[in-house]
Amino acid sequence: MPIYTAPVEDMMFLFEKLRNNKNYNEIEKYKEVNSELAKNILEEAAKISENIILPLAKSGDENPPILENGIVRTSPGYKEAYTKFIEDGWISLSCDPKYGGQGMPRTVSVFFDEMLSSACLSFKLYSELTIGAYNCISHHASDEVKNKYLPKMVEGKWSGTMCLTEPVCGTDLGMLKTKAIEQPDGTYKISGQKIFITSGDHDLTENILHLVIARASDSPSGTKGISLFLVPKFIVKEDGSIGQRNGVSTGSIEDKMGIKGSATCVLNFDDAVGYMIGPKNKGLNSMFTMMNLERIVVGIQGLGISEIAYQNSLSYAKERKQGKANNTKSSNGGADNIIEHADIRKSLLNMKSIIEGQRALCFWLSQQTEVSLYHSNEKIKQEASDFVSLLTPVVKSFCTDMGMEITSDAMQVHGGYGFTKDQGIEQLYRDNRITPIYEGTNSVQAADLVFRKLVNKNGDIINKYLELIKKDCNIENDKIKPFVKELNYHLKILSDFTLWIKDKLQNSKDDVSAACNDYLKSLGFVSIAYSWIKVLEVSFKEYDQNKNFYEDKIQTANFYFKRVLPRAESHFKTATSGSDYIMNFKFN
Amino acid sequence: MPIYTAPVEDMMFLFEKLRNNKNYNEIEKYKEVNSELAKNILEEAAKISENIILPLAKSGDENPPILENGIVRTSPGYKEAYTKFIEDGWISLSCDPKYGGQGMPRTVSVFFDEMLSSACLSFKLYSELTIGAYNCISHHASDEVKNKYLPKMVEGKWSGTMCLTEPVCGTDLGMLKTKAIEQPDGTYKISGQKIFITSGDHDLTENILHLVIARASDSPSGTKGISLFLVPKFIVKEDGSIGQRNGVSTGSIEDKMGIKGSATCVLNFDDAVGYMIGPKNKGLNSMFTMMNLERIVVGIQGLGISEIAYQNSLSYAKERKQGKANNTKSSNGGADNIIEHADIRKSLLNMKSIIEGQRALCFWLSQQTEVSLYHSNEKIKQEASDFVSLLTPVVKSFCTDMGMEITSDAMQVHGGYGFTKDQGIEQLYRDNRITPIYEGTNSVQAADLVFRKLVNKNGDIINKYLELIKKDCNIENDKIKPFVKELNYHLKILSDFTLWIKDKLQNSKDDVSAACNDYLKSLGFVSIAYSWIKVLEVSFKEYDQNKNFYEDKIQTANFYFKRVLPRAESHFKTATSGSDYIMNFKFN
Repeated sequence: MPIYTAPVEDMMFLFEKLRNNKNYNEIEKYKEVNSELAKNILEEAAKISENIILPLAKSGDENPPILENGIVRTSPGYKEAYTKFIEDGWISLSCDPKYGGQGMPRTVSVFFDEMLSSACLSFKLYSELTIGAYNCISHHASDEVKNKYLPKMVEGKWSGTMCLTEPVCGTDLGMLKTKAIEQPDGTYKISGQKIFITSGDHDLTENILHLVIARASDSPSGTKGISLFLVPKFIVKEDGSIGQRNGVSTGSIEDKMGIKGSATCVLNFDDAVGYMIGPKNKGLNSMFTMMNLERIVVGIQGLGISEIAYQNSLSYAKERKQGKANNTKSSNGGADNIIEHADIRKSLLNMKSIIEGQRALCFWLSQQTEVSLYHSNEKIKQEASDFVSLLTPVVKSFCTDMGMEITSDAMQVHGGYGFTKDQGIEQLYRDNRITPIYEGTNSVQAADLVFRKLVNKNGDIINKYLELIKKDCNIENDKIKPFVKELNYHLKILSDFTLWIKDKLQNSKDDVSAACNDYLKSLGFVSIAYSWIKVLEVSFKEYDQNKNFYEDKIQTANFYFKRVLPRAESHFKTATSGSDYIMNFKFN
Repeated sequence: MPIYTAPVEDMMFLFEKLRNNKNYNEIEKYKEVNSELAKNILEEAAKISENIILPLAKSGDENPPILENGIVRTSPGYKEAYTKFIEDGWISLSCDPKYGGQGMPRTVSVFFDEMLSSACLSFKLYSELTIGAYNCISHHASDEVKNKYLPKMVEGKWSGTMCLTEPVCGTDLGMLKTKAIEQPDGTYKISGQKIFITSGDHDLTENILHLVIARASDSPSGTKGISLFLVPKFIVKEDGSIGQRNGVSTGSIEDKMGIKGSATCVLNFDDAVGYMIGPKNKGLNSMFTMMNLERIVVGIQGLGISEIAYQNSLSYAKERKQGKANNTKSSNGGADNIIEHADIRKSLLNMKSIIEGQRALCFWLSQQTEVSLYHSNEKIKQEASDFVSLLTPVVKSFCTDMGMEITSDAMQVHGGYGFTKDQGIEQLYRDNRITPIYEGTNSVQAADLVFRKLVNKNGDIINKYLELIKKDCNIENDKIKPFVKELNYHLKILSDFTLWIKDKLQNSKDDVSAACNDYLKSLGFVSIAYSWIKVLEVSFKEYDQNKNFYEDKIQTANFYFKRVLPRAESHFKTATSGSDYIMNFKFN
């Protein structure tokens, strides 16, 4: 079984030293969330992640949930762990106190999301979609619906799902076929088949609340005729108690490459009672509230799995003896620990410098997200919201793609033992492999970025972001200057790349489509560098207060700027070669 | 189940138009291997690969071999397929007619290796190691041993293994603990444990011949005290019939991420009778004959799995409708086939241009290999051998790393269906994942390349290779010039990179170690470009004779030079930043 120790020190460093977004600090409701409180929470979160949840990864992989007589039974240990999880109030962490939540900001929950992803992504998914559904209901449903369903969700007794995909529609939701027929009492009867439904059915909660997109019989075709419905597994009576089974059944559980402990279901809706959430035909808007926040969390999943992959690689490299290093320290002619080999060290630093940079970026984004939701000034709120929109596809795709690179490199560090099952390393790779696919494939994210996020009705968002980076990195400190110089060099490339994209958006959309994945990568590498600059600023300033910690940060950043950031340039060069030769190619 | 059609047309193109190595064509024994014969063989090879072997992939993945009462039973269908396989004489394809083989050159068998890898790598491994052991025995054993064992191997009735790895020694074979004690009759008693033994035990053949490295009791420690032994599963009597069971037993079968149909065994040797092969204490030399040829085949495995991943992605992209293309052709407002989307096309062309370039490179290498083994002139032989040595780690690592990229991209093209088991796409990814690990991890290959292969006792091999590329690409044809210009630009980068490596080899070995993976990649990208230039030369020259085929080649090459080759430069830039900051890093 892989080892895991939650990186609480690094998390608390971010929380204490980089929680310096002025707008965030103005949010009234979080003024009492201080370092001491955050630290207490993270230390408890670390305990449950390391002790209770980590062992579930292997259990779920070896004994996936099974469907028997119409009932889905989760993997051994999941139910006990889930019971403890909700008893300790973990589902409620970031929920509104009005419904029983603890009201913690994302600047805290971002770290818990990471820990859970490191410990066991399959287990995490059972509660993650509940939070997604909670967010969607609390933003779009009527007070009556909220009061009826949210408290039980916050308590963790009822869970949630997102039902979008159908056999013929994944990315392209306009093609959906699930129907909703209005009834005299204002409810709807929902019929159709949904596939790839994460936590679609299981035995962890008393009820499951499906958020289903469907087309009302009098709605237009395409995406403009999609509405959102709440379809509970069991009908909830007026008094809030559980009534009869609704017309939803589980067709099968998908057999997948990874996250085997998560029950990914085919759900059949057969005249199931549904309640419309939000305005008719605006279902996609409502669903996207949930999807967008969820996409950031998927990025954090990639980060979390990368972290545990790194920890195990480091630990293995320190104890596995193999070959002689160039400057061997073993006097008796024996082998050195592989951590003495330059290429292994390089691989470890590649992981570490990307992971810590991503963590800083995700923390920055968590502050922006809170500002976008709760700041009192509409203009500030909007600006933060635009930054969140811009960075959402970047964090989703970049962190999950890097997760593939890092888990793959972890296998290489482990050699043959990385490919066999006993040490659990190959599982990290398989579990992470879903993250570049679900919640919109990484190509879909890249298309979203270039076609919808760079410039919107509020202005030139990417330009504002690039200006923000320039402003924040204009730091008077000689030790930082070499880093800023490197950043500026790549910022110039990214600006040129951006101009090229904007130009091609006018009349060569295929050029943009063929370049969008590369553009996202460049933006990702530069954004991580931006995060590192802010970490460096603190590290140099407060160096004497914690020399070992800050020296580690400075050297890790140094690696990032020398070996990782330059990858941004290669993407620019190849991507701007146009697309005629791609579009005109005749595939046999 | 994935589809697969062997790319015989492309293979025959290479065989007919690029079998132009003067030295190869001078080899007497292959003068009769003409296009007609090659085509007949490849068409039959395609049939057995597509019809008999392809279905074994799923069977092996779902029902791996099992160890029951000391006996390993292979997956359903494997035994029947193997029987047909040897009845049709496929094991004997490249073996010496003296022992019953068909004596086909690697210029033919390279394609069969690819087809088998595409169809089912797990099944292929049962015969592949037999060929490896055959090569080792025929190069190093006495005539008595050869006459006793080789005919049965060629027939496929007896199979072979390579037993190197032990729990504490993988890369570093000097640490091995298996012992060999000499007996009065000149045989040895072998005791120890070997792990990760591919095809270590199974029920496909009557006998299994283990080639085991071990240390004789009076041999020195380290790699200088390793000898090679032949240890049959069943003792072979003087008359060639099978006698009693030898002291070899199967401890367990490894549970692995992929190639589950292949029985990877822990073998326990307990006073097993062994026969020394080759000179005492020179066992590693003998084993490396086998390993080096085998490493090229591992590269071809990566190529083969890439090919089937590409074929399935192309087919799926042509029929999956999702989203509207920028220049949508669907007038009714519906979705387009995803092959109309620029980023999907780009992904497909990335696969195709790398695969076809690699196939051309492997074909070139197969000619060099034959020259290195069978040319009558020692000097020519030696030069070819040096090129083979140089390119072996490149082909092994580059083709397997690209195999990861291509199988991963194939999953992305398939979206959620790429992650579920039914379509078999995720299996390609899992099966390929062993190729960057076994036969020496790709980092070990890269170290081998820079520390041992660039320059050797015969001279400056890398320089000869770069000069060869320049000479071969000095082509008078205006249409080729833009391609050659791009190649030369990157050749200059590679030359600079090479000079940097040679310089650092003097006194900064860690700089070299930290750069070796990047150097190998650069050399790989340039070598593929070199292969494409030779393909282009024919394509432009003979354009009118087969317009569709050659236009496809030209456009595919165009993509390679615009989008793939430039990746060589990025590796150069980051790798030459030194290693002080890597070696001095203090990992906590």
